[in-house]
Amino acid sequence: MNDHPFDTAIALTHEPPQHWLGRTSDDYWNMVSPYGGVTAGVMMKAMLDHPERRGTPLSFTLNFLAPIDAGDFVIDTELVRANRNSQHWSIRLSQGGKVLALAIAICAVRRDTWSQTEATRPDVPPAESCPVAPPRKPTGFLQRYEFRIVRGKPFAVNEDSLSHVWVADNPPRPLDFPSLTALCDSFLPRIFLRRPDFVPIGTVSINIYFHAGEDALSRQGTAPLLAVAQAQAFSDGHFDHHGHVWSTDGTLLATTQQLVWYKE
Amino acid sequence: MNDHPFDTAIALTHEPPQHWLGRTSDDYWNMVSPYGGVTAGVMMKAMLDHPERRGTPLSFTLNFLAPIDAGDFVIDTELVRANRNSQHWSIRLSQGGKVLALAIAICAVRRDTWSQTEATRPDVPPAESCPVAPPRKPTGFLQRYEFRIVRGKPFAVNEDSLSHVWVADNPPRPLDFPSLTALCDSFLPRIFLRRPDFVPIGTVSINIYFHAGEDALSRQGTAPLLAVAQAQAFSDGHFDHHGHVWSTDGTLLATTQQLVWYKE
Repeated sequence: MNDHPFDTAIALTHEPPQHWLGRTSDDYWNMVSPYGGVTAGVMMKAMLDHPERRGTPLSFTLNFLAPIDAGDFVIDTELVRANRNSQHWSIRLSQGGKVLALAIAICAVRRDTWSQTEATRPDVPPAESCPVAPPRKPTGFLQRYEFRIVRGKPFAVNEDSLSHVWVADNPPRPLDFPSLTALCDSFLPRIFLRRPDFVPIGTVSINIYFHAGEDALSRQGTAPLLAVAQAQAFSDGHFDHHGHVWSTDGTLLATTQQLVWYKE
Repeated sequence: MNDHPFDTAIALTHEPPQHWLGRTSDDYWNMVSPYGGVTAGVMMKAMLDHPERRGTPLSFTLNFLAPIDAGDFVIDTELVRANRNSQHWSIRLSQGGKVLALAIAICAVRRDTWSQTEATRPDVPPAESCPVAPPRKPTGFLQRYEFRIVRGKPFAVNEDSLSHVWVADNPPRPLDFPSLTALCDSFLPRIFLRRPDFVPIGTVSINIYFHAGEDALSRQGTAPLLAVAQAQAFSDGHFDHHGHVWSTDGTLLATTQQLVWYKE
């Protein structure tokens, strides 16, 4: 097994046919639960490792039901339907029989078709010329990413929440679908770009569409990804954001949106 | 029972505790299956009608697994977890024991908090001054919506896929969560805004975040909604779009994204 902390955090033991045993990792711990991205990554990995899985991830939606305690967990992967070129999965993570994270996902065989990227990648300086932001906290999952903030000052009253950030695993790790899934939860919570003070927050739902296949991920290797996101609305205790994840060579790897609870 | 065709299409008989019996409607038929929006609406309604449901819809994600045949179907509503202020649901629609549509959803109690809408509503003429587009087909679900296209010419090579459309139920019907859910699937498939010829398409996943509660829906009544959407990428046989649904008074009711299969 690779000894990168991310690989340790998403390591699973298969109990055929559809149970997977895992364990939370201190390296990716957040306030009261594992970092949501590593939970998403390990649920993605359980599906990818399933012997019946065909094709690559196309769509992945994860709802966070309740905090996951430090320790062992079980993932259940159900292949709800297999079509000729696509598969539909339901994935549940539980502890002590209680479901704490619930995902639905689609895998598909990518086909060569007319293609066009309509989203535009912002014109930003290359990662090498952008300084690495000092870690916001001394411990936990934020140590596991290197952020180079191009636009969007945290804990400030910015005129909008649009951010441009180069992000990479720390230490570097070649990009794959579990790590890309995890990276899609590494965006700074948008409320921290609109208000100067910390407020309690928690992601309740994350949705990812994958726009590129394994070749594009392999090409990227360990280089930083450009993560772009902006909130659409903060209302009645929840806000969302819509984001893009770009490879260094300008390929749109994923679009993602999430909904986040906030306290006041 | 209300005799609006939408109410007929989403009518359900409860078989406690968690089964709901429904029947497809010719009024909302699409090519080979019911219109995806009415399937989303009836699955939303099953959750809303459940006696244990608390709060209003916050997040709803539906994956379409395979075509639904004309005739009877069963919806299964599972309350996977109930927290103090939120509920997590899993909803499955099946025929003959085969799951054909799979959703996960969150309901929550809306709370009064600091709020801010960051998305901007495009400046468009009021619906009354925009002509109603002639129906694109003589039968089926497209008759059940009135579209007033402000931006985005269908079946043309537009420079981008951004569209601004006033949309309303036809005949008019007061807005509620099932109809808003259905309306979120009424966007013209983006590929028809970039290419002049018809190609087979089918939505595989739709995700909706609800940013307003019942008061805002009641205020809207039967008036047209402003629907704004744009594709992010067309690649390897699938494209997505990201959209906003605005009330007449400028409230952001929902943000929505979907992933669509296309043939070539």
